[in-house]
Amino acid sequence: MRLVSFELDGQRDWGIVRPELNLVCPSRLWLGEDAPKTLLQFIELYHDRISNLVEPEPDDHWLKLEQVQIVAPIPNPVRNIICVGKNYKDHVSEMAKVGHSKETEISHPHFFTKATNTVNGPYSKIYLHPEITSQVDYEGELAVVIGKRGINIPEEKAIDYVFGYTILNDITARDLQKNHVQWFKGKSLDGFCPMGPWIVTKDEIGYPVELEIRTWVNGELRQHSNTKHMIFDIAKLISILSQGMTLEPGDILATGTPSGVGMGFNPPKLLKPNDVVRIEIEKIGYIENQMYAR
Amino acid sequence: MRLVSFELDGQRDWGIVRPELNLVCPSRLWLGEDAPKTLLQFIELYHDRISNLVEPEPDDHWLKLEQVQIVAPIPNPVRNIICVGKNYKDHVSEMAKVGHSKETEISHPHFFTKATNTVNGPYSKIYLHPEITSQVDYEGELAVVIGKRGINIPEEKAIDYVFGYTILNDITARDLQKNHVQWFKGKSLDGFCPMGPWIVTKDEIGYPVELEIRTWVNGELRQHSNTKHMIFDIAKLISILSQGMTLEPGDILATGTPSGVGMGFNPPKLLKPNDVVRIEIEKIGYIENQMYAR
Repeated sequence: MRLVSFELDGQRDWGIVRPELNLVCPSRLWLGEDAPKTLLQFIELYHDRISNLVEPEPDDHWLKLEQVQIVAPIPNPVRNIICVGKNYKDHVSEMAKVGHSKETEISHPHFFTKATNTVNGPYSKIYLHPEITSQVDYEGELAVVIGKRGINIPEEKAIDYVFGYTILNDITARDLQKNHVQWFKGKSLDGFCPMGPWIVTKDEIGYPVELEIRTWVNGELRQHSNTKHMIFDIAKLISILSQGMTLEPGDILATGTPSGVGMGFNPPKLLKPNDVVRIEIEKIGYIENQMYAR
Repeated sequence: MRLVSFELDGQRDWGIVRPELNLVCPSRLWLGEDAPKTLLQFIELYHDRISNLVEPEPDDHWLKLEQVQIVAPIPNPVRNIICVGKNYKDHVSEMAKVGHSKETEISHPHFFTKATNTVNGPYSKIYLHPEITSQVDYEGELAVVIGKRGINIPEEKAIDYVFGYTILNDITARDLQKNHVQWFKGKSLDGFCPMGPWIVTKDEIGYPVELEIRTWVNGELRQHSNTKHMIFDIAKLISILSQGMTLEPGDILATGTPSGVGMGFNPPKLLKPNDVVRIEIEKIGYIENQMYAR
């Protein structure tokens, strides 16, 4: 199932999307007038019984995808987006090689957060904030959406807590990231977390999660890897993160980026106005965002 | 004005507190049936017109402070608590001296966050999570509560965005903080952010903010400084943090801890079961929490 949040005539709604047919089924057409008001509420209420739900057959009441404006699947997250840095070996090496970091071995995942003001649509324009940074970079990532509350989740049960997956660009101001030492500030500028275009439920992805991931800038392939190359896989990340820390439904966990970020090139290939970043992940789709500076 | 959130007969409420009289005025007695349901909603709605409100005179309808159970002023924050590390020079030195950090000069504030699951009451017990950490430490801090939305806030206007102040203990698992490199994980265990006991509005505190701050463990004075010794003062912190990043009403910004944390001693004086940590800040009051390990 692919679940999407969108705007139609200025109203927020959500529903099931069938990208191959270019059709969307609004939530109330599917679940009736009592449908949860947001996709986040749907996740909270239906995580444990989603397999009981029948995916509806398209009919004339479905909307054309062009009619709606797709927004981030969870436009108002309950709290900060949780990210993990340096979770692909080749990315660790590239950052050490260009001197952006001294680390060459990662023994524990580096968790940090992006503030909620970063959330942006899958096809939205992204402001480069040139007044405060001159080093904006992209990081294509697979994001996990948590489906139910849990603490001290053992690795072998971790996938029970996953609702689904989406695509996320962990946009980063490299200068702020470095200057402020802790990464939060350089990761948290307004609009710096485009996401989507929808959440694909875990049954569609299978396990282990082995998905091709690719990032292009202006049509040039910059990142190409597979999520099977993560240093800490999804089950490990959830298990370690949840040690002593309660996860909530709707939590978003970005799983790290492979090599090929702009800062990894010599000289760096950082983002400029009008650049278009496209991130594609197998079985999910793509997000594509253009940069601007007014 | 001192504003407090509390529980009475299992119901959450909030109101005005007069600690010197041991009395609380519930919100509806003050503002009528249309009173905002939470202190957070009051901040959102009343920040710009709080000076128009008249503080009520105590009468027989006020509650005795002993009747209610005081909880964190904002028990369900809209997003993660934002903190700044190493904002007192003497604390920077002590952490370098014991080898917990290599930094001796701070050119940019180190912002990081604590997840919302850390929020705890001002007098609640705190679980030490012995399964995953053996190095739990205290950090007494003044916290700023933001009153209205803003981005790129100039230093000279920063105080307009402050609603008030409270006390916060930025409890930290030092081993996790170090191992995971980014501080989020070591700062985000359940219950690791006791706060309160109330929010004191900024008019009661004055400006510049020069408040004595003291932390005791089992009656032994461990931290003693004044908020005037911050490396980045409150206006600077708000201004730098808000560059490119929209702040929201109800955002909580912890302003850093002075020297005297447990890790700064040789050998370290970390927290054990039954230890009681008391943090007192002039003009606000105190929070006091006992540690436990089941």
